Amino acid sequence: MSDELVLHEYSASGNCYKVRLTAASVGKHLERREYDIMKGETRTPEFLANVNANGRIPVLEVGDRFIPESNAAAYFVAEGSNLIPTDPFDHADMLRWMFWEQYNHEPNIATLRFWMKWVGVANLTELQRLQMTGKRGAGNAALKLMDEHLTGREWFIGEHMSLADICLFAYTHVAGDADFDLQRYPHVTDWIERVKGQPRYIPMSA
Amino acid sequence: MSDELVLHEYSASGNCYKVRLTAASVGKHLERREYDIMKGETRTPEFLANVNANGRIPVLEVGDRFIPESNAAAYFVAEGSNLIPTDPFDHADMLRWMFWEQYNHEPNIATLRFWMKWVGVANLTELQRLQMTGKRGAGNAALKLMDEHLTGREWFIGEHMSLADICLFAYTHVAGDADFDLQRYPHVTDWIERVKGQPRYIPMSA
Repeated sequence: MSDELVLHEYSASGNCYKVRLTAASVGKHLERREYDIMKGETRTPEFLANVNANGRIPVLEVGDRFIPESNAAAYFVAEGSNLIPTDPFDHADMLRWMFWEQYNHEPNIATLRFWMKWVGVANLTELQRLQMTGKRGAGNAALKLMDEHLTGREWFIGEHMSLADICLFAYTHVAGDADFDLQRYPHVTDWIERVKGQPRYIPMSA
Repeated sequence: MSDELVLHEYSASGNCYKVRLTAASVGKHLERREYDIMKGETRTPEFLANVNANGRIPVLEVGDRFIPESNAAAYFVAEGSNLIPTDPFDHADMLRWMFWEQYNHEPNIATLRFWMKWVGVANLTELQRLQMTGKRGAGNAALKLMDEHLTGREWFIGEHMSLADICLFAYTHVAGDADFDLQRYPHVTDWIERVKGQPRYIPMSA
């Protein structure tokens, strides 16, 4: 079985970028397979049967196995590196921020970004339009919680960058695409620069 | 520092039950502190300052530290037990189902259950009512994906119960509260009985 890592992705997705930034940060190579989600390329019978029955990217292929879910795929890539704390409490705290990202951050900030920049507000359904105000409020609440947590801290957990920082960075640093004003969250903007200053950092466009 | 585990919870919440079922399954004792979320007891200044700035339960207290997010708290409780696979791929696959639960399952099935059984349909906002159809469809899609995955398998990962099973079980086994018809998903109903048959199983009402 090959241990080559293949990332099935849509490169403009922050969820896919998490896995690429993780791989770059630990010095691992990823093969990349691009799908155009705007053309339904992850909903074809072949994709659903062979890559992910949930019809979503990213999916990490490892030998004959596949891992969907961005944060799980990033964890697999980071396993054994210093991105994953070994202290059990710190490890749980890292997972806490990663679950929080998927529940409180991504469905608001990433969804608004997708609606505004990819779908276009004019093309949204009435129900999507009605949800925008709630998602903006919840997205700002998420950024405020991050800003408060980062007051007096450099990283989300402990004294150096962990996988929680990478998973939170992906959609936070492009929140301006959805008209979130990051200047209201100075500890967040400082932290964004700190992530960008890491020696193995790669931008989303890489 | 005490290593006593204290669960800050609302006992009817499936997210809180995940942590209790995990503790029971690994033979650990939890102290319990009950909050009435319907009376806003997790949004008081004291709760926000001392327990969780995000105003949500469950939160696991361990010595002088606190872990919000049900799946992260359950992971901490299960650490070192056979609920957590040691094989890196199986471990990532477990996390994959746990992240999927928070993104694709809980916001649909648990939210509909909360709206229908706690808030009451008559008391929902217009926007909440408009979201019910989408959440019902997405909840059924989640149950269908679980049913397909469980075809020919006893557990979500590997050959015995893992933390992924516990985290998925919590809201699945009470999906009927939100009028989901579990009889449409026979592999899921078989798996529910398998979880209930585990020697250290405790019901949600325990």
